Amino acid sequence: MKAVQLTNGFGFEELTLTELDIPTPGPQEVLIRMRAASLNYRDLVILNGLMPVDIKFPFIPVSDGAGEIVAVGPGVTRFQVGHRVAGNLQQRFIAGNPRAEVLGESLAGPLNGVAAEYVVLHENGIVRIPDHLTWEEASTLPIAALTAWSMLIEYGGLQAGDTVLLQGTGGVSIFGLQFAVMAGARAIITSSSNAKLERAKVLGAWQTINYSEVPDWDKVALELTDGGVDHVLDVGGAATMVKSINALRIGGTVSMVGFLSGLTIPEYDVTGILQKAATVRGSQVGNRDHFEKMNRAIAHHGLHPVIDQVFPLNRIGEAFALLAEGKQYFGKIVVQI
Amino acid sequence: MKAVQLTNGFGFEELTLTELDIPTPGPQEVLIRMRAASLNYRDLVILNGLMPVDIKFPFIPVSDGAGEIVAVGPGVTRFQVGHRVAGNLQQRFIAGNPRAEVLGESLAGPLNGVAAEYVVLHENGIVRIPDHLTWEEASTLPIAALTAWSMLIEYGGLQAGDTVLLQGTGGVSIFGLQFAVMAGARAIITSSSNAKLERAKVLGAWQTINYSEVPDWDKVALELTDGGVDHVLDVGGAATMVKSINALRIGGTVSMVGFLSGLTIPEYDVTGILQKAATVRGSQVGNRDHFEKMNRAIAHHGLHPVIDQVFPLNRIGEAFALLAEGKQYFGKIVVQI
Amino acid sequence: MKAVQLTNGFGFEELTLTELDIPTPGPQEVLIRMRAASLNYRDLVILNGLMPVDIKFPFIPVSDGAGEIVAVGPGVTRFQVGHRVAGNLQQRFIAGNPRAEVLGESLAGPLNGVAAEYVVLHENGIVRIPDHLTWEEASTLPIAALTAWSMLIEYGGLQAGDTVLLQGTGGVSIFGLQFAVMAGARAIITSSSNAKLERAKVLGAWQTINYSEVPDWDKVALELTDGGVDHVLDVGGAATMVKSINALRIGGTVSMVGFLSGLTIPEYDVTGILQKAATVRGSQVGNRDHFEKMNRAIAHHGLHPVIDQVFPLNRIGEAFALLAEGKQYFGKIVVQI
Amino acid sequence: MKAVQLTNGFGFEELTLTELDIPTPGPQEVLIRMRAASLNYRDLVILNGLMPVDIKFPFIPVSDGAGEIVAVGPGVTRFQVGHRVAGNLQQRFIAGNPRAEVLGESLAGPLNGVAAEYVVLHENGIVRIPDHLTWEEASTLPIAALTAWSMLIEYGGLQAGDTVLLQGTGGVSIFGLQFAVMAGARAIITSSSNAKLERAKVLGAWQTINYSEVPDWDKVALELTDGGVDHVLDVGGAATMVKSINALRIGGTVSMVGFLSGLTIPEYDVTGILQKAATVRGSQVGNRDHFEKMNRAIAHHGLHPVIDQVFPLNRIGEAFALLAEGKQYFGKIVVQI
Repeated sequence: MKAVQLTNGFGFEELTLTELDIPTPGPQEVLIRMRAASLNYRDLVILNGLMPVDIKFPFIPVSDGAGEIVAVGPGVTRFQVGHRVAGNLQQRFIAGNPRAEVLGESLAGPLNGVAAEYVVLHENGIVRIPDHLTWEEASTLPIAALTAWSMLIEYGGLQAGDTVLLQGTGGVSIFGLQFAVMAGARAIITSSSNAKLERAKVLGAWQTINYSEVPDWDKVALELTDGGVDHVLDVGGAATMVKSINALRIGGTVSMVGFLSGLTIPEYDVTGILQKAATVRGSQVGNRDHFEKMNRAIAHHGLHPVIDQVFPLNRIGEAFALLAEGKQYFGKIVVQI
Repeated sequence: MKAVQLTNGFGFEELTLTELDIPTPGPQEVLIRMRAASLNYRDLVILNGLMPVDIKFPFIPVSDGAGEIVAVGPGVTRFQVGHRVAGNLQQRFIAGNPRAEVLGESLAGPLNGVAAEYVVLHENGIVRIPDHLTWEEASTLPIAALTAWSMLIEYGGLQAGDTVLLQGTGGVSIFGLQFAVMAGARAIITSSSNAKLERAKVLGAWQTINYSEVPDWDKVALELTDGGVDHVLDVGGAATMVKSINALRIGGTVSMVGFLSGLTIPEYDVTGILQKAATVRGSQVGNRDHFEKMNRAIAHHGLHPVIDQVFPLNRIGEAFALLAEGKQYFGKIVVQI
Repeated sequence: MKAVQLTNGFGFEELTLTELDIPTPGPQEVLIRMRAASLNYRDLVILNGLMPVDIKFPFIPVSDGAGEIVAVGPGVTRFQVGHRVAGNLQQRFIAGNPRAEVLGESLAGPLNGVAAEYVVLHENGIVRIPDHLTWEEASTLPIAALTAWSMLIEYGGLQAGDTVLLQGTGGVSIFGLQFAVMAGARAIITSSSNAKLERAKVLGAWQTINYSEVPDWDKVALELTDGGVDHVLDVGGAATMVKSINALRIGGTVSMVGFLSGLTIPEYDVTGILQKAATVRGSQVGNRDHFEKMNRAIAHHGLHPVIDQVFPLNRIGEAFALLAEGKQYFGKIVVQI
Repeated sequence: MKAVQLTNGFGFEELTLTELDIPTPGPQEVLIRMRAASLNYRDLVILNGLMPVDIKFPFIPVSDGAGEIVAVGPGVTRFQVGHRVAGNLQQRFIAGNPRAEVLGESLAGPLNGVAAEYVVLHENGIVRIPDHLTWEEASTLPIAALTAWSMLIEYGGLQAGDTVLLQGTGGVSIFGLQFAVMAGARAIITSSSNAKLERAKVLGAWQTINYSEVPDWDKVALELTDGGVDHVLDVGGAATMVKSINALRIGGTVSMVGFLSGLTIPEYDVTGILQKAATVRGSQVGNRDHFEKMNRAIAHHGLHPVIDQVFPLNRIGEAFALLAEGKQYFGKIVVQI
């Protein structure tokens, strides 16, 4: 079978398409014919050797993918051959709150990822995907969709009528927009592109802010909402955190789901957290229970994930290069397998 | 001013239209020109002298209404003349969990109600109503809408993709349907009338069950949902409670919001509660914070309450007689003032 | 090895002490030398063939036990030989909310139980026990302690200063008393024996009520608390439920954890649930996360479970006969293995 | 009557003892003979003109105090003459979540404070104090105790067996210690004084860390707890926040309740929040419902607030000077009135 590997060093220019034996599922494991994988910022960080996880070469990258079960090992009870599935990033995070022992076992670092024609996973680490989704669409769910779902719906307790602020039009933000709309909330979204903001309106955005034209988007958010938004999905990190808190109502929440602008805030003033009685919560992707609940909601609403661009597997390096450019995408970058 | 009163005895045939002086707002009070009132089952119980609250004659009935502020007393800070408002059933229940001291002070028992051209209320006991609603629509919010909102959204924590079962097409159930749809949930609704079920579908019902044709609606609900519904708004009481619990998934919730079929269950078997690890929660209408959050959601969605029939004030007796018939309404019965 | 079995029929007189081969742990399984087992009302119901679970003969009864790991199968990562452990009733209920798929896999029905010298369990279905506990003490944790912990602490959100009412002095109630005291709550306990009430005071009970002398214990509870208790652990079922709800404050909770007086309430009036805006919640024992948190608390406090009587394994029939008498025990009945 | 005032400028050297008329309670107001007041860091900030609230001179400082009701205005229903009470910092924050409209109305900025022999407050803004407390003890409750209670118990959901880390031995930290012990949690406390750590042990501290001797107290906390603490009450602000997050377990919480070391963190790296999936929550003191629940718990446990030093009213300047020194106190500084 074909697989993408880092053979003996980091850097996405090191990615090579290799030929491997098809693996065999052991007890409680299934063999999946992967059909699509989607890229996340986390994959880039790992490819560049910048994440403190223990990578063993040769290493198969990319955590998120979807495919079809083609064989089951002994003792499998949750799945059958023919089921369409996706893997959960944290293979042992089944339910409840995150614990150190389950957060370690993640796909594509330290475990191998899914950028291969065949992958073996434990039946406890996968979920069925909604019938109406293509393989490419389903491949976007594990990190981008589940992060937005967990932080807004499960931990955030988003209610109809609440206001959510989304930053940019990358994968997590667009899922955040779609879930906010699905849950009856009012979504404000920012972008430097008016064309992208128009597309966001089609997806249901209540208000849009072009942050190139209006750098004080936090003040605009305060005005639009007569006192502040209930929830911000912060994808910027260092450059956005202070404004994210400032955009909140008293008692509001910022979920930190990314750090596109870096991890270090110079001269960070905590006054905002105190004045707003704000909650800042670090993202934790999500458990399998949440994944299954999310898929139920996606199926009921016939929601389609938004894909920016699709590459064939042998051009995965280009796909990563595109992601690394850090331009403003609209949704997810996907690789067909 | 005109007002409806029970002068010296219970029974809705005792209702008389009288002429009273327009009251004067005291400190922190406002004078409201009431424009519409809506009837609830609670009003019927009180009119018939069957609720253990201390009624003093002459007594103005009907708890739920909407109108315009025409004067404010000294020290009022939350409102101005011209504001469109509705009263909260429990006048002192501002926020947080219910406590004995706040649940006592309810409109239309023991306090006077709003079936009058002018009513004085404390500024802490009222909320602004959404701009897009007519007086008649807004008058339906205090009990029927807020009960559905509180139990599903605030206490129930309803999430997108969850399944809610509504019983019949009365006021609370139709609001439950509208809020479930607004929050992205899947709504199953029952009725004995296929015509009413068709109307419910137009409002967004996912599935409908004619309980005259299919008395085992609980089993149908189990099948439709592959394991049970997440939440039932039980309006039946004695006759429906056991089936409501049976329709639940493991860990699901029944909110008791009515008792149209009575309060006494013969031979009640608690096995269902244990087997389902179910939660049964008695309704508590809701506090002012919840009312304001609900109104924000109603405004964002442009939701219109559903009105079954409108009567002029001098025919309020007929309106109550209609309610007392116990037929299947579709939404609320309203009186213009 | 010695094991207790029902060979081909129900009834605790059918229990026989047999000689079986020591089982071998498979992948991710451990072999436990069981040292003690404790009896629950659930075991009695199963032994009498009255629970709707699929029992295959020969059947090893008793769900709750503690012992030492003496061998581990391939792939075990959570445990080592020498670890002192107890099984979790629901072997696959690791974390989060209960779901149909995990509630089915319970020890001692439908799975075999632990009344044997050696037992093989999956490493996901066991927890380490606190060092300071004897085998007999540790054997009481899985159902009795975890039920009280889950309902009071995890689902009930018990806070310091809250009032909890416990019924009788059986296993769950005594653990409820100990956990309530540990969490800073005020515990009221009932019994028909003043001697037992004195012992409960030694364990930290704030108030005691002899329900033989004072049948209206619900009214006494209302008076003692100036408005009602926050939480009742109802172990009685049919005969106690109405009074349990009546003893609540507005907004209080009854957790149904037993049905010693039966499952069918004649003429059940739901008025109480509505007037109290009460929550009634069916018990669900608990997941492994909760079990581990409970053990951490037990260890920190040096809490000792209370044991009523200990029997040797060959007198397990007598132990069950004692339990079946339905007398008022003080704590748990345990069997040494 | 005697009162302390800032007559026309900021600075605690501007405090003067003046003679004023005894005020008269208006509708729903009570007249309180204040007996003691306790000082908070917030008072210092306001006295120095550094808090962005609108102060009108002459201004009576100090938000926290306790006294006896000596007269009631018309319409008062919650209190009688003779009741022992304390004011709630946020006079209109009765229940539920904080909202802009209630957070503004705080005692001692912008409203007048309680450093006077007689004070008039609205009956909605006060609570009864536990019988067993002296006036001095009761005066410490409004900010210091309620902040610790709200953040640990109400928002933090502290459970028996959880681990809490307290920083230093000031008022909030000592209350945090006492409440953690009361709720069955394990408390770790830091100080630069071994003598103070010994006193903390007497109050129930599980572990102590001298941060002068062991600057890496975060690493010690990680070791002591085998993975991190559940909750940190951060009183340091700028200098402690990063270590506070580092001391957490995965999924733990830091409550920001002070900023003794400043508000600006240089080079703040948000990696910790992400790696720990941490929650950081800005303090919000607390509402009246929480205050009453806290007092119920304090009464049940016979808990005595810890007082560092008591001054007579005419030496309030010295008391503030002591507080301003920023030394390590053990508990609260109180002024008798």
